[in-house]
Amino acid sequence: MGVVDGTWSVYLSGEIHSGWRERVAEGVRSAGLPVELLAPVTDHGASDEVGVNILGAEEKSFWKDRKGAGVNAIRTQTLLRRADVVVVRFGEEYRQWNAAFEAGYAAALGKPLVTLHDTELTHALKEVDRAAMATASEPEQVVEILRYAIAGPG
Amino acid sequence: MGVVDGTWSVYLSGEIHSGWRERVAEGVRSAGLPVELLAPVTDHGASDEVGVNILGAEEKSFWKDRKGAGVNAIRTQTLLRRADVVVVRFGEEYRQWNAAFEAGYAAALGKPLVTLHDTELTHALKEVDRAAMATASEPEQVVEILRYAIAGPG
Amino acid sequence: MGVVDGTWSVYLSGEIHSGWRERVAEGVRSAGLPVELLAPVTDHGASDEVGVNILGAEEKSFWKDRKGAGVNAIRTQTLLRRADVVVVRFGEEYRQWNAAFEAGYAAALGKPLVTLHDTELTHALKEVDRAAMATASEPEQVVEILRYAIAGPG
Amino acid sequence: MGVVDGTWSVYLSGEIHSGWRERVAEGVRSAGLPVELLAPVTDHGASDEVGVNILGAEEKSFWKDRKGAGVNAIRTQTLLRRADVVVVRFGEEYRQWNAAFEAGYAAALGKPLVTLHDTELTHALKEVDRAAMATASEPEQVVEILRYAIAGPG
Amino acid sequence: MGVVDGTWSVYLSGEIHSGWRERVAEGVRSAGLPVELLAPVTDHGASDEVGVNILGAEEKSFWKDRKGAGVNAIRTQTLLRRADVVVVRFGEEYRQWNAAFEAGYAAALGKPLVTLHDTELTHALKEVDRAAMATASEPEQVVEILRYAIAGPG
Amino acid sequence: MGVVDGTWSVYLSGEIHSGWRERVAEGVRSAGLPVELLAPVTDHGASDEVGVNILGAEEKSFWKDRKGAGVNAIRTQTLLRRADVVVVRFGEEYRQWNAAFEAGYAAALGKPLVTLHDTELTHALKEVDRAAMATASEPEQVVEILRYAIAGPG
Amino acid sequence: MGVVDGTWSVYLSGEIHSGWRERVAEGVRSAGLPVELLAPVTDHGASDEVGVNILGAEEKSFWKDRKGAGVNAIRTQTLLRRADVVVVRFGEEYRQWNAAFEAGYAAALGKPLVTLHDTELTHALKEVDRAAMATASEPEQVVEILRYAIAGPG
Amino acid sequence: MGVVDGTWSVYLSGEIHSGWRERVAEGVRSAGLPVELLAPVTDHGASDEVGVNILGAEEKSFWKDRKGAGVNAIRTQTLLRRADVVVVRFGEEYRQWNAAFEAGYAAALGKPLVTLHDTELTHALKEVDRAAMATASEPEQVVEILRYAIAGPG
Repeated sequence: MGVVDGTWSVYLSGEIHSGWRERVAEGVRSAGLPVELLAPVTDHGASDEVGVNILGAEEKSFWKDRKGAGVNAIRTQTLLRRADVVVVRFGEEYRQWNAAFEAGYAAALGKPLVTLHDTELTHALKEVDRAAMATASEPEQVVEILRYAIAGPG
Repeated sequence: MGVVDGTWSVYLSGEIHSGWRERVAEGVRSAGLPVELLAPVTDHGASDEVGVNILGAEEKSFWKDRKGAGVNAIRTQTLLRRADVVVVRFGEEYRQWNAAFEAGYAAALGKPLVTLHDTELTHALKEVDRAAMATASEPEQVVEILRYAIAGPG
Repeated sequence: MGVVDGTWSVYLSGEIHSGWRERVAEGVRSAGLPVELLAPVTDHGASDEVGVNILGAEEKSFWKDRKGAGVNAIRTQTLLRRADVVVVRFGEEYRQWNAAFEAGYAAALGKPLVTLHDTELTHALKEVDRAAMATASEPEQVVEILRYAIAGPG
Repeated sequence: MGVVDGTWSVYLSGEIHSGWRERVAEGVRSAGLPVELLAPVTDHGASDEVGVNILGAEEKSFWKDRKGAGVNAIRTQTLLRRADVVVVRFGEEYRQWNAAFEAGYAAALGKPLVTLHDTELTHALKEVDRAAMATASEPEQVVEILRYAIAGPG
Repeated sequence: MGVVDGTWSVYLSGEIHSGWRERVAEGVRSAGLPVELLAPVTDHGASDEVGVNILGAEEKSFWKDRKGAGVNAIRTQTLLRRADVVVVRFGEEYRQWNAAFEAGYAAALGKPLVTLHDTELTHALKEVDRAAMATASEPEQVVEILRYAIAGPG
Repeated sequence: MGVVDGTWSVYLSGEIHSGWRERVAEGVRSAGLPVELLAPVTDHGASDEVGVNILGAEEKSFWKDRKGAGVNAIRTQTLLRRADVVVVRFGEEYRQWNAAFEAGYAAALGKPLVTLHDTELTHALKEVDRAAMATASEPEQVVEILRYAIAGPG
Repeated sequence: MGVVDGTWSVYLSGEIHSGWRERVAEGVRSAGLPVELLAPVTDHGASDEVGVNILGAEEKSFWKDRKGAGVNAIRTQTLLRRADVVVVRFGEEYRQWNAAFEAGYAAALGKPLVTLHDTELTHALKEVDRAAMATASEPEQVVEILRYAIAGPG
Repeated sequence: MGVVDGTWSVYLSGEIHSGWRERVAEGVRSAGLPVELLAPVTDHGASDEVGVNILGAEEKSFWKDRKGAGVNAIRTQTLLRRADVVVVRFGEEYRQWNAAFEAGYAAALGKPLVTLHDTELTHALKEVDRAAMATASEPEQVVEILRYAIAGPG
């Protein structure tokens, strides 16, 4: 019973402008964990344009954004519901309201939540951190948490 | 993380008198997507007769229809619950209340919904479209949406 | 125990171009039933324009409809969730996909459903009728059903 | 049936540094709507200090924040669950991740959501707006939406 | 805190051919308990005929029964969902599958269940009794249980 | 899309004193359907004794039955929750309240229900039949229903 | 909006051998809070005997306890479900597994949880405290938390 | 249909200072049951230290415990939700409030529960045992229960 059988699905939500997902992926691979990593589309341009690219142009940016947000939500809501654990990363740049929205959505679904951010953001994220099982500042800590949760202590 | 592992189940609800499901299926196949396409029975005659064929004749059409609708619902409700994404197609002909009923059912279950119809039907379908993540007019757009949601940008 | 205490909330969904809601209301009043009747906004013009009236004009009818459908849904989804019983009326005119959508939504929430329509529509509505506890053709039958359900046999 | 009986509970989430809640309250009062307005504690200092004030001091700001966020969440989660409609306001200042978190939480609970923000924030809020029934830029529009949803067209 | 404020709704399901509901009602009245007693229609003839009386005659008894069961279910499912506690009575006569069906329905909804039957029926009812919080043989015991649960020990 | 991929789980509840499950199993096998048939323990003696056999003797039959019903419920509730479709068989003998209890439980969980019984039992089972998608009198009809629901018309 | 209208229901679970509930009640009364305090039966003897007193004697203490626990659960599960906030008190004496069981039950229902215990119990209660919004050591702190949550600061 | 296909997931909660899990595992292996056994981390020291080991030291034991409890809960809540059956073991030593908390959590999720403890603990565990399908005193009885539930009588 040291290692739990079966794959764990872990959804990596939030910041798309740094390499944190790759660091989690590398750590998971090194540790040989049975983890399926899920993520939103992280190509910013593609994500912004997908609505109008597929469904037709819009003059108003509000509706262009609506179309794009809808197509992206098909992916993200499906992955959120499929996930065993949800990790949400907040960075220094951009407002990242979508990350906080997905954290709230995951919390209401009862998904175990891990937040990942620098300590400078602690006060601003206090309500989100409260809803989390753990708050890490480095991606490698997330890997350690997953390793422990899935495979137990070394 | 470019491609999400695992199969997506997509339920194709609605119109049964055109080849739109085949166009979605062909597109999914061409794109090599890990998609399981689910559908109601699309043989109109068989669908109408299945209740009385299996469970015995009825004089009143109301009860004949009831028997048929029950047997068909065993299939459709199971597939709706199993689906990750629900696509609902509305055509010009027939009233297609069943399609709208299944859209409402899927929306209440929190399933991501995609509607597919000509722009002439926009006003009549405004409440259903509002509940959808995306509204397409061609089956190939549905394939593009699935491709993006599942495999990410090219 | 002949009369159940407490008010019943009954949501009257569907057709807005005939006087069926008034006939139900009159019957409920005559019978002295403790019923709160709930309804969508039935002023067709106001309902269509409410989105752009409050939130600003749109050039494309698709987005005008989206805005209106959103504002109306605040009312209808709240009332649907509050209702003890949902009655859905289908008439001869218009496509009324919204009525069928609300029937599907109510069914998925486990609300007891009553359908109300002429027998000419039986075949087209077979899937919706299957999900209903009762199918009536006259508003006065709906009143009788409510009277029995709430106050018991005379 | 023009006016729905019963009180509507409306939770006003988000920005606490402007007078938007008072403008909504004033409008609701003027319109004579049967609305119970709910809100988080909007006294910023009291909200930040409540955890340590009641439960004892903390050296680390992380745990001070945790205590405060916990006590505030008793209020906010109770009000969120009690609300018929949730309005979330985003302003220019501060990161307001809590507002987005509550929007996500409300969306997952199936509560009708209204967002309120300047058009400059449209792109940053596209995922939150997508989940909303309506997006307003002025508090008076929120009042109009409530008036229509509750009392119907003038 | 000896007496809990607020009314308790108690649904009395099952046998309709004896005076057990009156004995519970009399006991509740004597004890002055804040209990709203809910019940199905207990007039056997009216219950059997209500479907065809309101919705039109049927030649086949199967469909006559279907119509009646639908109208009765509008009442019983609404009351079951509204109930705080569900009491199900099984007698010696008739098959009473509806009583057991309602017990299963209530159990799945997480309603506290009390069964009431003679000890001769113990073996036949073992699965239903297992799902119950208490099994009584006399209506006065049900009153005692309600008195204790609501008002505490004398 | 003629054949839906994936296995369907079908729980066969009810009567244990006839060979109806074998007839369903034989039919499913002949038709080559991807069906996993689930069932309670049908060895009446073993089912009655399992509680005291494993957990120790009881003098009172009430508690002996309680122990047995508990152990059996571990199996039956797990299978009910796992099932895509629930078939409930009622026979002439015994009271079979457990079958009706499981039908009510399955209905509340939203599982598609099929009832199977002779027409002599129609009136006694009207409430259970109302909650079912189909009512059959022969096991082979159940096979036909499954064949249609899973594989579509021949 | 400083004071939220409407009554809050607060369930006081756990220790029955000290006067903590009275201290909470006194504080709530002094503060004039619109709080309905709910509690299990705290008369230890009555609670232990209620099962056999109403439903008949048992020789084995296991079944005597089963009967008593069932009757008490009718009260406690109803109050738990009705509560807006659940406070769970752990004392030094007795094992109080029921308190922890109710905390777990409340947590799974998504009820805001407050734990109340001496700091000596911190390590033993770490998993329960983790699930709580706040952990207090004195009943007066619970009153302060309720005052803030319901009436806001000052 | 004697053996149910598919693996059963069984979560073994509670006492970590005896070899009861190994006895269950040995019995399951001997019986050749298709069971996946799930368990919390049972290395007491590792479990206590994991929070601070991964996420940084804490001076106060309260917060050290909070961090550890959070990381452990990622594992335990995921396994609880994945489990078909939950077995909870109570021993003589320690307070084991976490075991009772998990029992309450599992009960609220509707998971079939088996309790395992010496008869000396019967009175203290009466509320937990009431919520269980079976109460055993030896791990081998748990194996027998699983064998019967999964594979049926020998």
